[in-house]
Amino acid sequence: MRRYAGLASAEELEKALREIGAERYHNLHPFHRLLHGGRLNRGQVQAWALNRYYYQSRIPMKDAALLARCTDPGLRREWLQRILDHDGAPGGREGGEGGIERWLRLCEGLGLDPVYVGGETGILPAVRFAVDAYRHFVAERSLLEAVASSLTELFAPGIHAERIPGMLAGYDFVSESMMGYFRIRLTQAPRDSGFALDYVREHADSPESREAVCNALIFKCDVLWAQLDALHHAYVLGGGIPAGAFVPEDMTGRAAS
Amino acid sequence: MRRYAGLASAEELEKALREIGAERYHNLHPFHRLLHGGRLNRGQVQAWALNRYYYQSRIPMKDAALLARCTDPGLRREWLQRILDHDGAPGGREGGEGGIERWLRLCEGLGLDPVYVGGETGILPAVRFAVDAYRHFVAERSLLEAVASSLTELFAPGIHAERIPGMLAGYDFVSESMMGYFRIRLTQAPRDSGFALDYVREHADSPESREAVCNALIFKCDVLWAQLDALHHAYVLGGGIPAGAFVPEDMTGRAAS
Repeated sequence: MRRYAGLASAEELEKALREIGAERYHNLHPFHRLLHGGRLNRGQVQAWALNRYYYQSRIPMKDAALLARCTDPGLRREWLQRILDHDGAPGGREGGEGGIERWLRLCEGLGLDPVYVGGETGILPAVRFAVDAYRHFVAERSLLEAVASSLTELFAPGIHAERIPGMLAGYDFVSESMMGYFRIRLTQAPRDSGFALDYVREHADSPESREAVCNALIFKCDVLWAQLDALHHAYVLGGGIPAGAFVPEDMTGRAAS
Repeated sequence: MRRYAGLASAEELEKALREIGAERYHNLHPFHRLLHGGRLNRGQVQAWALNRYYYQSRIPMKDAALLARCTDPGLRREWLQRILDHDGAPGGREGGEGGIERWLRLCEGLGLDPVYVGGETGILPAVRFAVDAYRHFVAERSLLEAVASSLTELFAPGIHAERIPGMLAGYDFVSESMMGYFRIRLTQAPRDSGFALDYVREHADSPESREAVCNALIFKCDVLWAQLDALHHAYVLGGGIPAGAFVPEDMTGRAAS
């Protein structure tokens, strides 16, 4: 324990953060290996997209929770870009499409009713708990930790670059137009994570605050990992689908009692 | 959906609540069937006791969150008993032992270091997220929903009555003195759940509020179920132990990368 106590500089901090990503980011999770390798069936991919929708839907809320406690107008102005990216800009269609709309298009392309997805009824409770934990973390911890918990985006471009060709090659029910969300994140994520990394390098100015930054990233990796564990358990390993959660057509009859 | 919309009376509400318990309480979970049937190994039982400690440790905090928002001194006075039961009364040893101490004795009897358990480092992230969701629910929802979310205790005596002889018969490493927590809950839980049931029968005075009570109990069943899903996934089905979580001696080398 306390593996990241005593970091003496911004350089040591960044090295530790990259090490955490290399060890704990959810690209390593067996469910993602199955997803990207074309080894899931359509119902399992639907379950993933549906549950990940809940994560997408809460991202702008957690970003708003950060704005809501931030006294620095400059930081608010930078951070606002994230909400614009996910929700779209004011002005309806003129404001441009947001990431949540793109995610719903992916869900629809996979055969899910967007009204069902947006109604959030079939989400796995464990996914809901993990995502809500992220929102509470951002609202309750220090501003530095709230910023640091976004740093999984440092590792996102790699997973998207693997996911797009993997899913297109692996599934005849996935088309290029459904990959829109990921293509755009390839440029958005590096911009956001670059800003957040600069921020924590500058503002974490003691070994204690650098350790808190590391722990915030570990927490966030846990949030992502727990979502995949829940999907893997319910929809791949046969652990049973919790009552009320989405049952793919090809798994009817396999829900938990 | 909306299965519990339109409940017209306290009798219909109570019937619905008992139905929810019969369908969703965690006595039905496969992990509990394994635990009570003597079919887990010592490391798996340790993992259960360790993770359940986190739940035990947060119960008085969620009860305090209820007190913290309750303007009725009478309700506070009744509800305070729950904190006394779990933490013990003021006055140290003179105040009597609390449930958390009893749970630590169970952990110690199973071969876990109580300092390690109390340090909360090995807890599965999914268990942490589920338990914290319960605490946030009690702090944020209506007082009626906060009270209602305790109603899983209606079904607790049954599970304890099954667990005590099941674990004593099934495991040579479990002794009578380790079952102290459950023996005492056999009388505490019916008193608490009787009070909470009377409370929701009286205060849920519309179909809408009765539905909210049902949904609060469903939420709480999800909280308990998700904890067992996480244990089942990591320690039984081979889904991988998340980085940082407890690794039983007999599972060394099986942790996730």
